Amino acid sequence: MEKIKVILDCDPGHDDAVAVLMAGKHPAIELLGITVVAGNQSLPKTVTNALNVCQHVGIDVPVYAGSTRPLVQQPRYAGFIHGTSGLDGPQFEPLTKKAEATHAVNFIIKTLLNSEGDITLVPTGPLTNIALAMRLEPRIIPKIKQIVLMGGSVGQGNVTPAAEFNILADGEAAKIVFECGRPIVMCGLDVTRKVRCYQEVIDRMNQIGNKASYLFKEMMEFYNKTQKEAFKWEGGPLHDPVTIAYLIDPSVLTLQHCHVDIEIRSEQSYGRTNCDLVGFLKKEENAYVATDIDVDKFWDIIEECLKLYN
Amino acid sequence: MEKIKVILDCDPGHDDAVAVLMAGKHPAIELLGITVVAGNQSLPKTVTNALNVCQHVGIDVPVYAGSTRPLVQQPRYAGFIHGTSGLDGPQFEPLTKKAEATHAVNFIIKTLLNSEGDITLVPTGPLTNIALAMRLEPRIIPKIKQIVLMGGSVGQGNVTPAAEFNILADGEAAKIVFECGRPIVMCGLDVTRKVRCYQEVIDRMNQIGNKASYLFKEMMEFYNKTQKEAFKWEGGPLHDPVTIAYLIDPSVLTLQHCHVDIEIRSEQSYGRTNCDLVGFLKKEENAYVATDIDVDKFWDIIEECLKLYN
Amino acid sequence: MEKIKVILDCDPGHDDAVAVLMAGKHPAIELLGITVVAGNQSLPKTVTNALNVCQHVGIDVPVYAGSTRPLVQQPRYAGFIHGTSGLDGPQFEPLTKKAEATHAVNFIIKTLLNSEGDITLVPTGPLTNIALAMRLEPRIIPKIKQIVLMGGSVGQGNVTPAAEFNILADGEAAKIVFECGRPIVMCGLDVTRKVRCYQEVIDRMNQIGNKASYLFKEMMEFYNKTQKEAFKWEGGPLHDPVTIAYLIDPSVLTLQHCHVDIEIRSEQSYGRTNCDLVGFLKKEENAYVATDIDVDKFWDIIEECLKLYN
Amino acid sequence: MEKIKVILDCDPGHDDAVAVLMAGKHPAIELLGITVVAGNQSLPKTVTNALNVCQHVGIDVPVYAGSTRPLVQQPRYAGFIHGTSGLDGPQFEPLTKKAEATHAVNFIIKTLLNSEGDITLVPTGPLTNIALAMRLEPRIIPKIKQIVLMGGSVGQGNVTPAAEFNILADGEAAKIVFECGRPIVMCGLDVTRKVRCYQEVIDRMNQIGNKASYLFKEMMEFYNKTQKEAFKWEGGPLHDPVTIAYLIDPSVLTLQHCHVDIEIRSEQSYGRTNCDLVGFLKKEENAYVATDIDVDKFWDIIEECLKLYN
Repeated sequence: MEKIKVILDCDPGHDDAVAVLMAGKHPAIELLGITVVAGNQSLPKTVTNALNVCQHVGIDVPVYAGSTRPLVQQPRYAGFIHGTSGLDGPQFEPLTKKAEATHAVNFIIKTLLNSEGDITLVPTGPLTNIALAMRLEPRIIPKIKQIVLMGGSVGQGNVTPAAEFNILADGEAAKIVFECGRPIVMCGLDVTRKVRCYQEVIDRMNQIGNKASYLFKEMMEFYNKTQKEAFKWEGGPLHDPVTIAYLIDPSVLTLQHCHVDIEIRSEQSYGRTNCDLVGFLKKEENAYVATDIDVDKFWDIIEECLKLYN
Repeated sequence: MEKIKVILDCDPGHDDAVAVLMAGKHPAIELLGITVVAGNQSLPKTVTNALNVCQHVGIDVPVYAGSTRPLVQQPRYAGFIHGTSGLDGPQFEPLTKKAEATHAVNFIIKTLLNSEGDITLVPTGPLTNIALAMRLEPRIIPKIKQIVLMGGSVGQGNVTPAAEFNILADGEAAKIVFECGRPIVMCGLDVTRKVRCYQEVIDRMNQIGNKASYLFKEMMEFYNKTQKEAFKWEGGPLHDPVTIAYLIDPSVLTLQHCHVDIEIRSEQSYGRTNCDLVGFLKKEENAYVATDIDVDKFWDIIEECLKLYN
Repeated sequence: MEKIKVILDCDPGHDDAVAVLMAGKHPAIELLGITVVAGNQSLPKTVTNALNVCQHVGIDVPVYAGSTRPLVQQPRYAGFIHGTSGLDGPQFEPLTKKAEATHAVNFIIKTLLNSEGDITLVPTGPLTNIALAMRLEPRIIPKIKQIVLMGGSVGQGNVTPAAEFNILADGEAAKIVFECGRPIVMCGLDVTRKVRCYQEVIDRMNQIGNKASYLFKEMMEFYNKTQKEAFKWEGGPLHDPVTIAYLIDPSVLTLQHCHVDIEIRSEQSYGRTNCDLVGFLKKEENAYVATDIDVDKFWDIIEECLKLYN
Repeated sequence: MEKIKVILDCDPGHDDAVAVLMAGKHPAIELLGITVVAGNQSLPKTVTNALNVCQHVGIDVPVYAGSTRPLVQQPRYAGFIHGTSGLDGPQFEPLTKKAEATHAVNFIIKTLLNSEGDITLVPTGPLTNIALAMRLEPRIIPKIKQIVLMGGSVGQGNVTPAAEFNILADGEAAKIVFECGRPIVMCGLDVTRKVRCYQEVIDRMNQIGNKASYLFKEMMEFYNKTQKEAFKWEGGPLHDPVTIAYLIDPSVLTLQHCHVDIEIRSEQSYGRTNCDLVGFLKKEENAYVATDIDVDKFWDIIEECLKLYN
């Protein structure tokens, strides 16, 4: 089987870090590079976190620093979930791995232009890098095979009643991406909230007994704590890993092809992904929206990924 | 036990008609009047429907015609659900019952001003009448005991991805009502979509064997047909009756006190009820939002109400 | 010549008060009633001011109290221009004239319904009363001969960069009125800012030497002071009187028939009157927008009106 | 006197072309490069037009192609003013001058990063290139000496009642630029509409009798024709040249330091520059808005610039 070529565009962040762990060693995935964006924390922090995770578990993939802020909106971070560093919890060794000199946007552009149209973009943070690349070099757009992203919500948001963090953080970038004309798989809160990392999940992964599984444990213990403080629930939702799980086994998600509009005109509903599942608006479908997830299969995939480490 | 004094403000509509049946004879409820508004269909049609239902089953309550159109928005009807008449399906006898000469808004104003603050408003259509009354005579506001309304959605809408019909039809009126400062119980799609009138429900009610239960059957058979065409599901949701069921037995709903903002600034998200269940925005609570419903209890209440007819 | 039947709907306010003086005695005008709305100050104050002006100069016209607040927006007053009372400056005798018991909205409805379609509405405040009347009783709309209003701006606003006070104060009401389908003459800041009440104007009017001219002087001296503080200019613009001047002599204004949209969706541009003078949008004309004014003629009309008092 | 280092970012366009002529030879200006953006016409056309003008009159400055479309908005061109080519009217020799291989955005970034903070950006089209450069490399922002742009309007727009073309074409880019924190001089319609290129101006420039003056004549004759068709006036406003005239002699403009908000939330008022000349909003000044222009001095500068050609 041919590997799925992936550029992972993320803002680690605990759940992004799990997505990195999943994509880092899985035989179905060829991880071409990790591009980083400001989001869960400022760019220097999210870059450091990406490097730390890769170095810690031995993922030998180049990391590229990208946008320091959203296109139009004022920056907002998610320190209340991810802590001051953006990846509070685990302790890492002194960092020797370095980010590449190339800007993430230029890496994305160059890699796509040189590709044969077989690269999947996997954004798990605000879509600033992807949007900037599309506008700086529009010829990359037809080169994108698909975009499998974490973001949005059919129902309620997780930062405002209307909006999910990644889309809220840069609604204009999201609008650019959702209107690009390439296949989009939207993994929103409607499914990611169903994969809650209860203590039993942590225990199960911990038993694997390798560096990746211990890292998983340390990260998730912190994450569950802040999730409980913020949302009053047990077991934080493992948002970003849903994207990689879908690449490894698409049957994990139920998708519905429909029209998705990004709300950028309202103050109070800014960043909402208006997903027309019913077809009220008779507009052309532009995204495959995940409406359900096979939770057991999801955890099996996580375990499978973590076991690949020494 | 003291009766709950109710003004039912509706736009029948099949589910409104069931709400009328429920409120018409129940011993816990004193139905002071039925005020009618344009919504599911134009005002002459919704008035006729209200009169027909009352006459057909012998509900001796005055009916008042109100607003012919929303405050600011262009009118939109729901003929695709309720048919050309707004209550397609049943056949009624020639109509002899007449609407009162007084305008619904003036009836609401006069009744509230003369009351001892013990009247519950139950709007099951667009909130135009209530909003107009509040602005024409602000002194009625402190006289309202509570407002138990059908409208809105925490999650997806039923006319656009963002909005539910009653709020979408007159968002400005909804904003006026939600900001009035009196206790509001919002029965939105999140609960009303759970009480789906499957064929087994129709059969159960039909067995009661009186005029009200036959009317229920005839209306629901038509309603289920259009619901299936529009939403591709079996069993239309019995939206409006949830309000009356709650008055009869409040334990049927799970409520959460929170802040609700009405979206009136956006084109695409217009009419959304942004319900801050998590408390993201730290704004004052202005509504009790129904988040769950006891489905079995709900059907028991429906049955109880229908049995009260001869 | 037949008299022009007028209902003056105002929120006095210094410039409203001058409009009252103008309409009160002019032989071309039959002033059917003065309806009052909250705007420049709260309703009790604007009603008192209307009564005081009438009593002081002997205008024997009924005054009706109307809306205490805008339809949807939070109330905002213009105390920085009109002072605490809304008509600071002149001293009035103890008030014996009383407002009628009928609500302004009901007076407007009843008067229009009973008319032969020959009544001109002259709103010089927020359009709340007119909008409420149109929605409470839509049959009045075809009965309106024309609406000659002060409000809006083709160019800059006077409370925000986008909006003029009367429209900003109740944008939803303005939208209702501008979309009513009847002839509208919009006297906006583009012309009212050209009739600046310099000291020489005050002196000229003062020489008339009657109660009305003295009142004019006292009011304008206060008004010019606050206008200078707020806008750093000499001579406050006599906004509201432009409407009555136009009724007395339509040649005082240059009008352009065009489409006007009221902005109610934006936060920062809320209340803007987007006047399509060039015809960019190819939408149907709904207003005659005043684009120029004959300043000399305007002051002549003012003088003519003031001279009619003893 | 030290020369003013300029990057001219334009979308020629007849008035852009005049700005190029002005900046191309004037001893006060060192034109570092011409960067081109889609706007008045599509990018291939605006690039060709820039090259044609430079080649025709012998301006030896590199030309860089930039953004093919706005950040978020759908593209809109101004063919009704500038013709199919974007510079209809003059005939050019076969084009041998070529655009540089570097993208305009990368040229802007590199040039600013390598500068000593002494470069003035002069955008006369949609602000897409500038905004993209700021977001791709934020370190350029403190390196910008000032931005002297044509765009916006205190009063009416020229494509919608609310908005001027350059800002309307890419409101999000405009918002990015106006919020960048560097000194901005906004030359909007309020002044550019005062410099109308009447036939007497064309005749005057034609008498100079060189290639530049003949080109001016040919361009303006076409431009005046379409301006008359679109706006029904004689003499098209020479919008873009105002920027260069200001650099050559700042006394040509009257400026007011104030806060400017870009409207990107509304549909109908999108792209409006809400200029708070009065200081209503008490927000920090972010632009020097041109409120008046010395028309005679402006034409003298134009003549002075055109005379510099052989």
